[in-house]
Amino acid sequence: MLHSDDRRRQVKSANRRAILDAAADLAEERGLGRFTVEDLAERAGVSRRTIFNHFASVDDAVYARCSELLGVIVDDFVELADATPPPDAPSTGAVFEQLADVIERTDLVRPLSRIARLVGTGENHPATIMWGHEVLQNVTARLTDEVARRNPHSDPFTVALLASSLINAMEVAFTQWAAETGAADTPGSRLVWQRLLRTAVEHLRHGFAG
Amino acid sequence: MLHSDDRRRQVKSANRRAILDAAADLAEERGLGRFTVEDLAERAGVSRRTIFNHFASVDDAVYARCSELLGVIVDDFVELADATPPPDAPSTGAVFEQLADVIERTDLVRPLSRIARLVGTGENHPATIMWGHEVLQNVTARLTDEVARRNPHSDPFTVALLASSLINAMEVAFTQWAAETGAADTPGSRLVWQRLLRTAVEHLRHGFAG
Repeated sequence: MLHSDDRRRQVKSANRRAILDAAADLAEERGLGRFTVEDLAERAGVSRRTIFNHFASVDDAVYARCSELLGVIVDDFVELADATPPPDAPSTGAVFEQLADVIERTDLVRPLSRIARLVGTGENHPATIMWGHEVLQNVTARLTDEVARRNPHSDPFTVALLASSLINAMEVAFTQWAAETGAADTPGSRLVWQRLLRTAVEHLRHGFAG
Repeated sequence: MLHSDDRRRQVKSANRRAILDAAADLAEERGLGRFTVEDLAERAGVSRRTIFNHFASVDDAVYARCSELLGVIVDDFVELADATPPPDAPSTGAVFEQLADVIERTDLVRPLSRIARLVGTGENHPATIMWGHEVLQNVTARLTDEVARRNPHSDPFTVALLASSLINAMEVAFTQWAAETGAADTPGSRLVWQRLLRTAVEHLRHGFAG
């Protein structure tokens, strides 16, 4: 009985993986919203019914794949952050420097480039707006927790502001980067990303008072 | 013929006004999503059909009223900004100080308090998320234009970052203010708003490096 439950779980997990990968491939080849649930079922090698056991729509599968890609960024970030113990003398400034350093060392170009190919960079789709909102809220909440953990005596409003300002700056940098480079992952586009990220971090570090 | 067109426009405009005000009253009394198009028609003194000539849904009418209230903020802001000529020696720092000053002098508590009563502050509603996204994009775009106008030789990325950081900081301040005060408009809640706004502006002014 346990054996057959295990087996069922394995099949379910393999199906989900196949659907996610097929959805990403189709979104990249044809664009979001340009393929049907039948196309997806055929590509993933599962039935139409199995698709709907996992996702409410074809688009949902693409967004789930994007969330996975963003999850990799956050996991990389958390791993790097964990390898950097909280500062001995915690302060907003010390925590900011640690986070800025970890953000600069996290590879954002590869996953962001992939996500841009999957959902486009125009974000006009209502579903993309909803997905983006949820993702930004989650990422900001996780970064807020990380800042609070590193500086437990800081004012909660300053913590919220610091985390949200960093995420917002990365979003502005991403928009500019996508406009300048077409969101391609090339050595040249990586230089553009580094320049934009550094400019953004520098403005938050020293402020806009000039 | 012209006369009758004028008359039709007047009736249309008066109907729209009546629907917007009735929608706001009902949202405030019962909460968003807790009244029907029939309730709205009765309160506004128009037919059900007239409602749908103006708005796709009851919620849409409430959001339109909120956009109007936010429009008042932006108009106040632009009026104050227009009374402040661009700095003689334009720089990011000089423009930041002008905007921070105008933001501190704009009455945000009254309209924000009203909006919070109309749509709540939880923003879990998908329609509220969509509305909020559109509003924030529009306000950020208008502020970006204003910064660019005051500092025509500045780097566009810095301009985008400055405008977006200010709007984001105000959003974080609003969330904190709503949590602390229940978004009420009282002398005490106005003091809380001033404190939060000043803290936020100060962090963007001098940076997080401490």
